[in-house]
Amino acid sequence: MPRLIDLSLPLEHGQATFPFDPKLSIVTHNTTTSIGYNITQISMSTHQGTHLDAPRHFFDDGTPVDEIPLERFFGEAVLVDLAPGSALEPKQPITREMFQVHAEHFHPGAKIVYRTGWDRAFGRPEYYSDFPSLSLEAAEWIAARRIGLLGMDTPTPGTQWKEIHHALLGAGIEIVVVEAMANLELLPTRFTLAAFPLRIKGRDGSPIRAVAIIEP
Amino acid sequence: MPRLIDLSLPLEHGQATFPFDPKLSIVTHNTTTSIGYNITQISMSTHQGTHLDAPRHFFDDGTPVDEIPLERFFGEAVLVDLAPGSALEPKQPITREMFQVHAEHFHPGAKIVYRTGWDRAFGRPEYYSDFPSLSLEAAEWIAARRIGLLGMDTPTPGTQWKEIHHALLGAGIEIVVVEAMANLELLPTRFTLAAFPLRIKGRDGSPIRAVAIIEP
Repeated sequence: MPRLIDLSLPLEHGQATFPFDPKLSIVTHNTTTSIGYNITQISMSTHQGTHLDAPRHFFDDGTPVDEIPLERFFGEAVLVDLAPGSALEPKQPITREMFQVHAEHFHPGAKIVYRTGWDRAFGRPEYYSDFPSLSLEAAEWIAARRIGLLGMDTPTPGTQWKEIHHALLGAGIEIVVVEAMANLELLPTRFTLAAFPLRIKGRDGSPIRAVAIIEP
Repeated sequence: MPRLIDLSLPLEHGQATFPFDPKLSIVTHNTTTSIGYNITQISMSTHQGTHLDAPRHFFDDGTPVDEIPLERFFGEAVLVDLAPGSALEPKQPITREMFQVHAEHFHPGAKIVYRTGWDRAFGRPEYYSDFPSLSLEAAEWIAARRIGLLGMDTPTPGTQWKEIHHALLGAGIEIVVVEAMANLELLPTRFTLAAFPLRIKGRDGSPIRAVAIIEP
């Protein structure tokens, strides 16, 4: 039996997100008393909590989340730990050089998850403002490697969000970007990642349950 | 590389569900023109489309979806095809005898998915009213086998919904019930099932992306 590690943040009513994005609402709709069963209405952004970006997120003609092949969301992945046994500082720049020492893993189609330790700030206001921040040069270096998936434990890769997303999601690149992951310190360097989105037709992303599968 | 099979229905704005349950709304919140990126607000029931039930769905003291161990959602599964090469009739009773001939697969903890072929009716009004219907006797027989997960391609197991869910989700049983699956005709008898719920704290269920993983 493989061991499973939860790489996802919890979802709770009223939880924060980026200021201009839809808020997370989790409301009781009916109960065992009112109708015989508990059922909940959940209203959320396609980018709430642990989630993934499809190219459609930044490109009107980019591939929507339901048209990305399932193989892009499942398979062998590599952890790049940018702060083993520790964590990067708030707002710390994440440079190209920090990835170049791990260049052996960045081959076409590879699934790469990088750890900053920032999930420790989840639930605090600064989680969405003070995260360690991927430089545009680093994003462009990663995009040029033509990897298949890039995951991270910050709510977005970096403060130059528009340029970075354009580099990662752009035509001919189309990297699946998995944001706001958690618990990456529990991962070995190699693991199997499952990060399947909901099958939302024609849209820009999806909340996910990201899980690592560790074969014995 | 394993082969992946999508076992999930698509999610689209305005899609039907059971009459008393929250409706599915998928609405554009911002766009590349308005703010620089496409982002969507999705409002849905925890039981919309392909989804799973936690014991909390029918029991106020039942385990909520975020407290079920991940191992219950991933691993070896067996397809029980109740109509190979064909489909059951609308409203056809699903009897205990139809499962008893497959009794060898119903061991404690097993993940069992049964196929009726009813997903062909998805998108038509009768999908939610005329589905082949698990008998209470069949549900009780399955519950007594103490399997771990029961999946199906109907939107709920049977018309005696309260009694059936009580039998499957009750104390000491707590079978994970995966409803409204699709494409089960593509499955071999044995496959690996991934059916992870979103990590919704303290709630009754979750929409999922159900996927079969077929090792080469």
